[in-house]
Amino acid sequence: MSVTQYSLAYLAEFIGAELRGDDSLQIQGIATLQNAGADQLSFLANPAYEKYLPETRAGAVIVHARFADKCPTNALIHENPYLAYAKLSHLWEKRCSVDSQSTQIHPSAVVDPKAVLESGVLISAGAVIAAGVVIKQGVVVGANCVIGEDCVIGENTRLSANVTLYHGVSLGKRCIIHSGVVIGSDGFGFAPVNGQWVKIAQLGGVIIEDNVEIGANTTIDRGALDDTVIEQGVILDNQIQVAHNVRIGQNTAIAACSAIAGSTVIGRNCIIGGASGIAGHLTIADGVHITAMTMVIKSLTEPGVYSSGTGVQPNSKWRKSIARLRQLDKMADRIKRLEQAIQENNPQPAKDE
Amino acid sequence: MSVTQYSLAYLAEFIGAELRGDDSLQIQGIATLQNAGADQLSFLANPAYEKYLPETRAGAVIVHARFADKCPTNALIHENPYLAYAKLSHLWEKRCSVDSQSTQIHPSAVVDPKAVLESGVLISAGAVIAAGVVIKQGVVVGANCVIGEDCVIGENTRLSANVTLYHGVSLGKRCIIHSGVVIGSDGFGFAPVNGQWVKIAQLGGVIIEDNVEIGANTTIDRGALDDTVIEQGVILDNQIQVAHNVRIGQNTAIAACSAIAGSTVIGRNCIIGGASGIAGHLTIADGVHITAMTMVIKSLTEPGVYSSGTGVQPNSKWRKSIARLRQLDKMADRIKRLEQAIQENNPQPAKDE
Amino acid sequence: MSVTQYSLAYLAEFIGAELRGDDSLQIQGIATLQNAGADQLSFLANPAYEKYLPETRAGAVIVHARFADKCPTNALIHENPYLAYAKLSHLWEKRCSVDSQSTQIHPSAVVDPKAVLESGVLISAGAVIAAGVVIKQGVVVGANCVIGEDCVIGENTRLSANVTLYHGVSLGKRCIIHSGVVIGSDGFGFAPVNGQWVKIAQLGGVIIEDNVEIGANTTIDRGALDDTVIEQGVILDNQIQVAHNVRIGQNTAIAACSAIAGSTVIGRNCIIGGASGIAGHLTIADGVHITAMTMVIKSLTEPGVYSSGTGVQPNSKWRKSIARLRQLDKMADRIKRLEQAIQENNPQPAKDE
Repeated sequence: MSVTQYSLAYLAEFIGAELRGDDSLQIQGIATLQNAGADQLSFLANPAYEKYLPETRAGAVIVHARFADKCPTNALIHENPYLAYAKLSHLWEKRCSVDSQSTQIHPSAVVDPKAVLESGVLISAGAVIAAGVVIKQGVVVGANCVIGEDCVIGENTRLSANVTLYHGVSLGKRCIIHSGVVIGSDGFGFAPVNGQWVKIAQLGGVIIEDNVEIGANTTIDRGALDDTVIEQGVILDNQIQVAHNVRIGQNTAIAACSAIAGSTVIGRNCIIGGASGIAGHLTIADGVHITAMTMVIKSLTEPGVYSSGTGVQPNSKWRKSIARLRQLDKMADRIKRLEQAIQENNPQPAKDE
Repeated sequence: MSVTQYSLAYLAEFIGAELRGDDSLQIQGIATLQNAGADQLSFLANPAYEKYLPETRAGAVIVHARFADKCPTNALIHENPYLAYAKLSHLWEKRCSVDSQSTQIHPSAVVDPKAVLESGVLISAGAVIAAGVVIKQGVVVGANCVIGEDCVIGENTRLSANVTLYHGVSLGKRCIIHSGVVIGSDGFGFAPVNGQWVKIAQLGGVIIEDNVEIGANTTIDRGALDDTVIEQGVILDNQIQVAHNVRIGQNTAIAACSAIAGSTVIGRNCIIGGASGIAGHLTIADGVHITAMTMVIKSLTEPGVYSSGTGVQPNSKWRKSIARLRQLDKMADRIKRLEQAIQENNPQPAKDE
Repeated sequence: MSVTQYSLAYLAEFIGAELRGDDSLQIQGIATLQNAGADQLSFLANPAYEKYLPETRAGAVIVHARFADKCPTNALIHENPYLAYAKLSHLWEKRCSVDSQSTQIHPSAVVDPKAVLESGVLISAGAVIAAGVVIKQGVVVGANCVIGEDCVIGENTRLSANVTLYHGVSLGKRCIIHSGVVIGSDGFGFAPVNGQWVKIAQLGGVIIEDNVEIGANTTIDRGALDDTVIEQGVILDNQIQVAHNVRIGQNTAIAACSAIAGSTVIGRNCIIGGASGIAGHLTIADGVHITAMTMVIKSLTEPGVYSSGTGVQPNSKWRKSIARLRQLDKMADRIKRLEQAIQENNPQPAKDE
């Protein structure tokens, strides 16, 4: 197996770092401070890991200037070591390559003659591309993906294996869509009549703007009449549910297993912790941060950090807490009666609540 | 692209509405009151949207009789505008058509010679149909679906792309199964022995009755010995988990990301909010409504609305609430001591709790 | 259809049970005490079902010695009837058979010439196997699975249909991977810079050890630098999310819809209830039992049972509980003032809290 390696000089220039040490050292990968070897690069971003710096056997470490003197090996001094690491990480990423000059369609893929594929596109084995689809340059469609009628996939977007797009889904440029993702399935819309449900055809589409990443097995429903919209720069983790007519604002990040109910509008630059639920028809302001497993049942109109839930306790204590929670009404009554009794015994007025 | 259009007269008759206005007007689609144009139809169902009625530019609006006089354009007067909209919506739905006279099997599909396909069936590219499968008239099997041995798929049921049915799954008539759905995977059954788990083969099947819709990436496990059963008219949203031997009663609706643990029986006409969890071996009565993110850990034997959880708060207030929740036992003790002190100071008896 | 049947004598020997009754009786399957017929076997494991024993029409029942005299039919006496049932259940399981002498590759499967397949392997229709993959003896790859570059799949492991493995995933021996599972998708790692997110390439892999079962639509992300690891004997239910760099210890069981955030380490022999969430960078000790829907936001360093959440209530009572929860701070203040008032009225000191 061939090894991908770069000189420290190259890496320093790549991230715009000041290099203190041996600029000809060849680096073959990235690892943590604890695990890196002499041919690997590491980084110190989280102060909690400073303790590992003196003992590291890394060939070089990306550090902030204030740690440079404590670095026992070659140092790449950078204002934002975590960002520098993020940029360098892609040098060692394994990705299928796309030939920008030609289009490669695996013989087992099924591409409708009425689909339009630009040059420099890779269609993997078993993929199925329907009529009216437009696939732009640099797109990779993974094995066994299914792309429905009239979808548009923007330049350099990559779909991993087993992604499903229903008809009329639009993906922007440089998106990354992970396996098992379903985009454009019907929103959950039904009219009740005589105890039964009459399905409402979901006539809207889904628009995913540029630079969006969508994690494995996440589902995004098509709109009922208007479109469901994911704005540019949004990052969605795995197993997220986005219902019909939701809009998620630019650069918002949502952690795994969260669910957004229908027609809710989430602002820009929000951070939503994992397994949170946001009810339908709400508005979440820009810059809202919701901690994990929060139940959001009203609009949040101001930026800030929001939470709900009761954290973990030993089961025996939890049982007591829960029992007491149900007695709160009675406790409040008892306090009120005590206050009245005190008042009667003691004519000087107690301070008002 | 061809345009699908209908005259107002046709639409009025289709839904059984009284038409006030130009019966020859050609309608090309449906949109919201805010967005509809002169060739589109809209509807007023939710009173919260009444404010948009005077300004709408829709070509026509479906309204209840009491709003007819306020409708600034052609009116389709109907007792249940939402239901009327539901019915009309299907006129503009894009669906692959099935030729009822012949069966179309894409050349890349793999159909076992021992599968039985009635006429008027569409098997899409890359689908795999195992031995013993019976597919009835009007069924559509989406691209890259996998149908296991001895499954039966009822008339006019539609499977979107990338659906997986394990062996021995029975689907009724007119069901809609969305992409990424898995039906018939093994229930989570293991016997503990010496700190390890011995798998229990899951020998039951799954029965999905008629007119059931199942949302994207929902999973329904096969039974351990008896079958898992979804009764007719049930609607399941995306990413729901239905464990082995669950039974869900007729016309019950379950919103996204809910989980139903093993052997629980849910009644008819229940509504279960999103991201709810229902523990195993419980019984939920007919007509129960569970709000979103509720934790159901006991049977609910009466119809009604049920909830749990603590709604969202600013993080700083939430931290205090949670801390106080854990002090409730102490608070209760303090109240008790206060009551005793009052009692000692004041021989007149306080009212009993 | 042929019938699989075994004599009671054979079954008794198979599980090491003492047989009281007709050893030549032919048994054709397993069923519950309530449903079993004269040619079926049943078992009594849960004392709650003892009431069904006297009336059972089963041909034979596996019972503990203490119930032997109450068994109205042939008895298989065993110390652990549930385990005995678990073992017997596999006799009636329907599984595709693998020919240990030859390798069967369906003509529609796409196997890269640089993949290595041992003999006795079954590759189903539409499966796609990339270069560098190693598939050991006895492995079954289901229809339309996609196996990325350089994966290794250990002896006798079975992948159901529509499983996706990204590159560099290692599966141990005798694992069972259900449909819709995605292993090796990118961890959710991004560096924030100027309100945008810079993706961090996920360079680690995923290691699944021997005897692991993974439920339908579960997702397991690859590590950022080190690997994500699922140790031997772990059982994961459906729709679980395992983030990057998580480690799950031997024989731990996790129920459906739980989510484990990044870098958390879960010990051995834990039991984690459904729809639980465990925050990132935590440590969960061996032998921890977490009840369903628990929010774990701190490490649990001692074995024991842990819980959180507020159980279901009628909605009207829940609304009061929640309102009171938010008044707890004020209630605490009122109690404090009452204590002060009592103190002032009554110079004998009240007992301290």
